[in-house]
Amino acid sequence: MILINGQTESRIEVLDRGLQYGDGLFETLAYRNNKIEFLEQHLQRLQTDSQRLNISLSESGLTKIHQELDFVCQNLQDEAVIKLIVTRGVGGRGYFAGQDLSPTRIISSHTLPSYPQHFPQSGITVRFCQHRLSESAILAGIKHLNRLDQVLGRNEWTDKTIAEGLMFDQHDNLIEGTMSNIFLVNSGNLLTPKLNLSGVAGVIRATIIRLASENGLTVIEQTLSKTDLIEANEVFVCNSVNGIWPVNNIIDTQQSYSVGSITQQCQSWLSQAIK
Amino acid sequence: MILINGQTESRIEVLDRGLQYGDGLFETLAYRNNKIEFLEQHLQRLQTDSQRLNISLSESGLTKIHQELDFVCQNLQDEAVIKLIVTRGVGGRGYFAGQDLSPTRIISSHTLPSYPQHFPQSGITVRFCQHRLSESAILAGIKHLNRLDQVLGRNEWTDKTIAEGLMFDQHDNLIEGTMSNIFLVNSGNLLTPKLNLSGVAGVIRATIIRLASENGLTVIEQTLSKTDLIEANEVFVCNSVNGIWPVNNIIDTQQSYSVGSITQQCQSWLSQAIK
Repeated sequence: MILINGQTESRIEVLDRGLQYGDGLFETLAYRNNKIEFLEQHLQRLQTDSQRLNISLSESGLTKIHQELDFVCQNLQDEAVIKLIVTRGVGGRGYFAGQDLSPTRIISSHTLPSYPQHFPQSGITVRFCQHRLSESAILAGIKHLNRLDQVLGRNEWTDKTIAEGLMFDQHDNLIEGTMSNIFLVNSGNLLTPKLNLSGVAGVIRATIIRLASENGLTVIEQTLSKTDLIEANEVFVCNSVNGIWPVNNIIDTQQSYSVGSITQQCQSWLSQAIK
Repeated sequence: MILINGQTESRIEVLDRGLQYGDGLFETLAYRNNKIEFLEQHLQRLQTDSQRLNISLSESGLTKIHQELDFVCQNLQDEAVIKLIVTRGVGGRGYFAGQDLSPTRIISSHTLPSYPQHFPQSGITVRFCQHRLSESAILAGIKHLNRLDQVLGRNEWTDKTIAEGLMFDQHDNLIEGTMSNIFLVNSGNLLTPKLNLSGVAGVIRATIIRLASENGLTVIEQTLSKTDLIEANEVFVCNSVNGIWPVNNIIDTQQSYSVGSITQQCQSWLSQAIK
């Protein structure tokens, strides 16, 4: 099912700025056990990001998003991924948008991706992407629609035994996976890349940082390199659909990690937070 | 008029990757005196860029684009801007596209923007954009649909007496205007920013470089700064719709330039190349 501004519809205006310029934002939501997981956190992030891009998402717009998500969920038979896109709207002249545009709301539901069910327990194999993430202090962290970096990174491999590709920035700093954020464990501390120049500041990343800190773990956001990966005791990636996947193997360095206790602890905290 | 894959249509599939990820390219074409200016150069750039993004634009796809552009032009009563978008197509699972997608062709015609007719002769006033362009060695130069940088730059001002905003990269290097490329004249040489980390390598930019070189001018692509702007004798911006606009005034530095002889010479070469 696809809703555009509340109407069942599968197509949008060509002149929508989401298509013309990638001028918009999105959220990827997991619908399981009859609810959207971390909905308020996703909508809070959407609001923050829309302010950063000067997209005028109003209170009434947010209310409509709530109603439309409810409607989509009522029509779901099963677990699903729900993608919410908000664009700056239709029109404007060239890059200039003006203040009068009304944001477009696009909500679509999709079947959950069919990854092996054992990934969260037994872990995954990852590779390094050759494609390097763009660097921009202003756009870093925002879940915007300019996602060519992720497209090019993800399309480097077809081997289904590789579950994720790790991405680096223009200066070879480790940033994230193509569809996930990344954490390392070293000396009992949780490390995750600073996202001040690249990357998407994911809702699950923020949740893990919060839960780990509340539970007394030291969490450090810092610049991380391949060396930090090599020296790590545990590595895991996370996103809203898949939760936490431990990393077992990195193809490029032939390095192996076991599924460690801190990774399992984070999985447990995350599960409890969803309930 | 809008044609999507040859059909008159104003809407595209929500699941088109152009909307979902900005996963595509575009060309902005000027239709004047019953022809599209520099059409072959635009289509050559489209082919080059599609190869860089691994978008499988085939020979038959290009033939269809020619035919569809002809059809749109036959229906034009007047001069126009024609925008050609090519996306990677509809579908794929998440960022992964696979090899089977068929690119989407979107051709739309628009009235020419109503800039004052004296701009090419008397020049324009510009400002500096605060927003800094993203840096990516792989994406630099490509006219792709990830254009949030230009949107944010262009939406910094509403004053219609300011015709263009100059954009700098993350390291304060001068790169381009929001909708144009830029050239400086210093000691009789033509200087233009290297586009190895940011910027769009415009068709008119390439044409000016070629024409100036053929006519014995020294053209240097190099890293340029605000200091180079201050030291320049002449400055001009260019794009496919507006041709060459001399820069008269920079608001931020309160600097003025007269319309110089090399700028006028480039305008003359460009006019002759269009005929």
